[in-house]
Amino acid sequence: MIVTVTPNAALDVTYRVPRLVPGAAHRASAVESRAGGKGVNVARVLHALGAPTRALGIAGGHDGAAVVRDLAEAGIVHEFTEVDAGSRRTTTILSTVDETVTLISEPGPALSEQDWARFAASVGAAARGASVLVCSGSLPGGVPVSAYADLLRGVEVPTVLDTSGPALLAGLSARPSVVKPNLTELREVTGIGDPLRAAEELRRAGAGAVVASLGAEGMLAVADGGSWLARPSRALTGNTTGAGDAAVAGIALELAKGAPGWPAVLRRAVALSAAAVLGPLAGDFDIEHYRREHDAVEVDHATGTDD
Amino acid sequence: MIVTVTPNAALDVTYRVPRLVPGAAHRASAVESRAGGKGVNVARVLHALGAPTRALGIAGGHDGAAVVRDLAEAGIVHEFTEVDAGSRRTTTILSTVDETVTLISEPGPALSEQDWARFAASVGAAARGASVLVCSGSLPGGVPVSAYADLLRGVEVPTVLDTSGPALLAGLSARPSVVKPNLTELREVTGIGDPLRAAEELRRAGAGAVVASLGAEGMLAVADGGSWLARPSRALTGNTTGAGDAAVAGIALELAKGAPGWPAVLRRAVALSAAAVLGPLAGDFDIEHYRREHDAVEVDHATGTDD
Repeated sequence: MIVTVTPNAALDVTYRVPRLVPGAAHRASAVESRAGGKGVNVARVLHALGAPTRALGIAGGHDGAAVVRDLAEAGIVHEFTEVDAGSRRTTTILSTVDETVTLISEPGPALSEQDWARFAASVGAAARGASVLVCSGSLPGGVPVSAYADLLRGVEVPTVLDTSGPALLAGLSARPSVVKPNLTELREVTGIGDPLRAAEELRRAGAGAVVASLGAEGMLAVADGGSWLARPSRALTGNTTGAGDAAVAGIALELAKGAPGWPAVLRRAVALSAAAVLGPLAGDFDIEHYRREHDAVEVDHATGTDD
Repeated sequence: MIVTVTPNAALDVTYRVPRLVPGAAHRASAVESRAGGKGVNVARVLHALGAPTRALGIAGGHDGAAVVRDLAEAGIVHEFTEVDAGSRRTTTILSTVDETVTLISEPGPALSEQDWARFAASVGAAARGASVLVCSGSLPGGVPVSAYADLLRGVEVPTVLDTSGPALLAGLSARPSVVKPNLTELREVTGIGDPLRAAEELRRAGAGAVVASLGAEGMLAVADGGSWLARPSRALTGNTTGAGDAAVAGIALELAKGAPGWPAVLRRAVALSAAAVLGPLAGDFDIEHYRREHDAVEVDHATGTDD
């Protein structure tokens, strides 16, 4: 069972408008809401693929209750720690004419030390029965920057850490098996523009492997034994929100099989990520495209810009 | 006591972002929520001016409960009919860099006939003790287009109807004392471009007087005895959301005094409307600007484009 951890889970509310025009008034033709947050998106993809998964997270207030209700309705196995502070809401504005996706996230709730201790205990217990532990997204307020490191330390199964900034840097000390920054996050935490050299820097700081998403260029893996670059068979336009989370689901699936072959990891991650771009909302993906793309992804050895 | 009626009251949630960019992801630095809807904004302005007011409306679900809680905290006398259907939420995105205000409104809840009958009874009872009855905003789902006409018919105190489209046209049959369309609404319901002629058309259809907001050009009144145009002393930039509601508060204040002098009505409506443009959120206004502007508004007899 793959366990996903989403400390800053959110209620994702999507409004459909013909076109978003800053400064104008819009009437949304439709409103949908469902459980969100990066780890929840990972669990949603795994669940759709029929992979055993358990979504852990933190929820509070009315929006938090709606998150838990939605997971139950979707049939996703979940275990959420209930807190007093209200969960955050993320608003997605889908322009139906030009298909742009605009996001507004609320800052997360501020947790007490006791809240976090209860959540950490539930993560520790779930990790013992897991094949892979995936930690995703930002940390809520009131939680130290070392929180992911504390969750990951001592976990005996493969781990994936998908976060950014100080939480990513601090998390490296717990030696996660894989970290999955995107290009911006990679540059931000290392100050290095070349993705290959930046990934090597993260490995020196503690990451077992680095799988970096390079947007339309595909994904780069830097691990023991080499570096690989995987490219999707064609460029797609659509909703890139959740594409990184679909990639993480692919990484976790391969890690769950045992010692991964990195080209295979990349192939699955790129195929799921591309299929997610075709999904209407984060956590959705086009399963037919995923299956076709899985055989079409090109994987090569990667070389640095100054090799 | 001025009674305001807001059948489609909303929870107004405001997000502050540096700049709203369609297609991008934004983190809101601050989230504020409060009771909204056009009639609630009118009551908020009246309350700030110390005028006795009572806000009537319909509320349901968590967002509806938040609306009622906020009115109680603001000290605004209110009487809301509780329904099962959840109240709508309106999201305001304030760009702090370029000061644009972008609105996204949810469609309203769908009410049952019983819900509406309970609300109509509460409006009927409140109208008997009122000096003025103000009906504002859109109608919720499930309510016939004649709903405002039904509320206004037989009311023995002066009435103001501030709505648009079919609800406005249907409302005219109950002969409201004043209707307050803006330029777009006026053109929409009459098909006539010239505001003076369009206003005369609405009077023929049942409106006692028409007070039309012409944006930065000021306001036009067409009533028994003549037509007047009032201009603000200077053009202002700011948040025009709620400027029309502030104007309605000004109209109601003058109607409450008895037989109104239309130049005096316009003067107060334009001054409050201009002061509302300087307020950060709908229902807020700059009281100092209002006082100065009240003496500075220019009022003239209006002449049509083809006179």
